[in-house]
Amino acid sequence: MTVTVDIWTDVNCPFCYLGKRRFEQALDSFDRSDAVTVVHRSFELDPTIPTDASAPIEAHIAQKYGISVAQVEANERGLAAQAAEMGLPYQTGGRDFGSSFDMHRVLHFALAQGRQEALLDSLYAGNFADDAPLFGDHERLTAVAVRAGLDEAQVRSVLADPDAYADAVRRDEQEAAALGVTGVPFFVFGGRYAVSGAQPVEIFARALQLTFDEQELPLESDTADACGPDGCEFPPTRR
Amino acid sequence: MTVTVDIWTDVNCPFCYLGKRRFEQALDSFDRSDAVTVVHRSFELDPTIPTDASAPIEAHIAQKYGISVAQVEANERGLAAQAAEMGLPYQTGGRDFGSSFDMHRVLHFALAQGRQEALLDSLYAGNFADDAPLFGDHERLTAVAVRAGLDEAQVRSVLADPDAYADAVRRDEQEAAALGVTGVPFFVFGGRYAVSGAQPVEIFARALQLTFDEQELPLESDTADACGPDGCEFPPTRR
Repeated sequence: MTVTVDIWTDVNCPFCYLGKRRFEQALDSFDRSDAVTVVHRSFELDPTIPTDASAPIEAHIAQKYGISVAQVEANERGLAAQAAEMGLPYQTGGRDFGSSFDMHRVLHFALAQGRQEALLDSLYAGNFADDAPLFGDHERLTAVAVRAGLDEAQVRSVLADPDAYADAVRRDEQEAAALGVTGVPFFVFGGRYAVSGAQPVEIFARALQLTFDEQELPLESDTADACGPDGCEFPPTRR
Repeated sequence: MTVTVDIWTDVNCPFCYLGKRRFEQALDSFDRSDAVTVVHRSFELDPTIPTDASAPIEAHIAQKYGISVAQVEANERGLAAQAAEMGLPYQTGGRDFGSSFDMHRVLHFALAQGRQEALLDSLYAGNFADDAPLFGDHERLTAVAVRAGLDEAQVRSVLADPDAYADAVRRDEQEAAALGVTGVPFFVFGGRYAVSGAQPVEIFARALQLTFDEQELPLESDTADACGPDGCEFPPTRR
């Protein structure tokens, strides 16, 4: 028996970066981790941004949400402190905010190549650990993808064709909408349990355990020792 | 937080008698048993039998299911052996099979009186532990109900009015049909997990644990540390 964990995420989202690590800590300690398959799903915090546009993170957030640059910087320091607690590198400046659509397309290509996990880690490192803008720059995105073990020519080919894996991205987003997802990270365990946000490690651990416990419970299809309109069942061998 | 366990049952059903005890053994060992409410729901193995008719169990089963009386007796001895393992008294002869509709009506009356559990135990004892027919005999049914602490005049009043609690019985049966229940006992934990049949104690224990674990998991309504179209949430207090 295996369990799939679907994680909707956006590389723009710092809590997705932190939440991924917290989930991984829970998974590393889980005694059935070899029976867990993780699939990263597409979500765009802002699907209206042109794919070739981006802006420095502080100015973007301050303008979009009507808060001061000082407040953005304070939030960033808070995020950096949380990241430090988990041993995750985090740069409080130098990032940009932009369209993640092309990244999601390449993440779907990487999924088909069996390298989605490596690519997402590489993208997060490129966005949060490196002091350099990542969005709206196909050259840097290509370099980050190659660092994850993908073939450079194939990545360039995907990026050059705006239709490549675009439907896969939109299907993920439609599924998120159908699930009522309004923020990321958003985790669905075994197609059944939803956990929203970068919850504590303990919550992810409990969700993993619960999902396995449930799948191993005999449900109504495993009727034993019951009586129905056609009589009582007497199995040939007794427990 | 409390969890309700709904158990569809028929007093005619020996596996309901055994299954009730196995469930109770799991409940007794469960550390949150004080937060569990049990409700017994109506199910008739044969809703076509007139309420005043009954037949000795061996002849009824042998005729209805086309097996020999010797096979019925062998099955009964198997049931008695299982009952003995749990310390439950079980008479292999002397029972009858009949309509349980009136019993279910009185069980609903007992539920309203807070004595449903006591009445069901008394009915099971009357059917399986006593060497005497119970069905189609309002006098004996009344005595068994009084033994469970119910008021004799009120029980007689319920039995004399065929409409009393009849809709409650039918609602239970309609709900069972909607759930696809084809045999009893049938347990639903927290309105969510179904366990069919007199499963081993361990299965009931796991279903109880699972139901509580799930209810205590923060689900999507308890979003923490997430980013959405309107920005990232920075709670005022950090975990």
